Amino acid sequence: MKAVHECLTVRTRGKGTYEITDDVARVVGASGVSTGTATVFIRHTSASLVMYENADPSARHDLHTWFEKIIPEDDPDYIHTTEGSDDSTSHLRMAITRTSEVIPIAGGCLTLGIWQGIFLFEHRRAPHVRSVDVVIMGV
Amino acid sequence: MKAVHECLTVRTRGKGTYEITDDVARVVGASGVSTGTATVFIRHTSASLVMYENADPSARHDLHTWFEKIIPEDDPDYIHTTEGSDDSTSHLRMAITRTSEVIPIAGGCLTLGIWQGIFLFEHRRAPHVRSVDVVIMGV
Amino acid sequence: MKAVHECLTVRTRGKGTYEITDDVARVVGASGVSTGTATVFIRHTSASLVMYENADPSARHDLHTWFEKIIPEDDPDYIHTTEGSDDSTSHLRMAITRTSEVIPIAGGCLTLGIWQGIFLFEHRRAPHVRSVDVVIMGV
Repeated sequence: MKAVHECLTVRTRGKGTYEITDDVARVVGASGVSTGTATVFIRHTSASLVMYENADPSARHDLHTWFEKIIPEDDPDYIHTTEGSDDSTSHLRMAITRTSEVIPIAGGCLTLGIWQGIFLFEHRRAPHVRSVDVVIMGV
Repeated sequence: MKAVHECLTVRTRGKGTYEITDDVARVVGASGVSTGTATVFIRHTSASLVMYENADPSARHDLHTWFEKIIPEDDPDYIHTTEGSDDSTSHLRMAITRTSEVIPIAGGCLTLGIWQGIFLFEHRRAPHVRSVDVVIMGV
Repeated sequence: MKAVHECLTVRTRGKGTYEITDDVARVVGASGVSTGTATVFIRHTSASLVMYENADPSARHDLHTWFEKIIPEDDPDYIHTTEGSDDSTSHLRMAITRTSEVIPIAGGCLTLGIWQGIFLFEHRRAPHVRSVDVVIMGV
């Protein structure tokens, strides 16, 4: 049984989704684990993780549009606005997506569907350097 | 320490929630693991997982109603509509529920609450065959 | 390789967020695990988990406000209302936050961000006694 930890650095260019599937798969391959899990965790509260369709960019376009609509920046009810109009919205968008995702490993590979990608979801307008932990456990 | 993987097949009959608690519990029982975790993962981006009240069907009725309201099929802003009006909505509904769920195992059993069930949440109108991975790890 | 399970009891005083980061960290410390994962799981369908900013209380104020708005108690479409106007809303708020969260352990500590806390999110008006399972696995 092995347990391997690696911390990935992801540079974002503002709001949007950034695919990290290949980075996670590389850690799985290097671990030598055949059956187990890959835990992916983002160390932030103004960015999150989301599994999404990674073939047609129009799918992610609609994701971005929907989040602007359901958690708009111009809601006058926000009081947590010290860092701007994208401050509270970033935390809220994180809360309804994911901070951790656990993906099975079978036959030495992630058991992802054909068009299923792992994305870092950046909620801040400004570019950020984000830390994503990956832990591989298994046999 | 053991790590066991099994892939479940779930046939859906269109939009709705399909309980898979017993299927996951069976994999736990067969594994012989006493203390550890059961990772449940769905290999799709137009269906998801959700933990929900499994005693009174009216609870899930309200779940289905709320999702139709908050992510409606008739939103003219969607551009990802190649596969119909339930294309982008399926991905969005998946994004705000869960793709993976990790349930503790103690005393050889899932530590679920009394009315807490594991459901596959189908977001497409048409019947589908869905793959759900289960990984049991522990001692 | 170790697998340790502990069940925490959390007493809530009605709707709101209750930080449990220190309780989870204590279980990690006692386990002696250096590299691995901490799985946190709530055994309920009317309360959930959420990772959130734990420095400025105004951030959580906006979280509570947004959930009252997006899943309001006075929606006439709910039919699951046996236990009151906060019955279906509790399940819905749970469904779009988290039931399980898996946090990496590296160097014997949770890899949390500086202002990243683990919260129990109580969705019922009345005080409740909640059970939260923690499983530590790793080397």
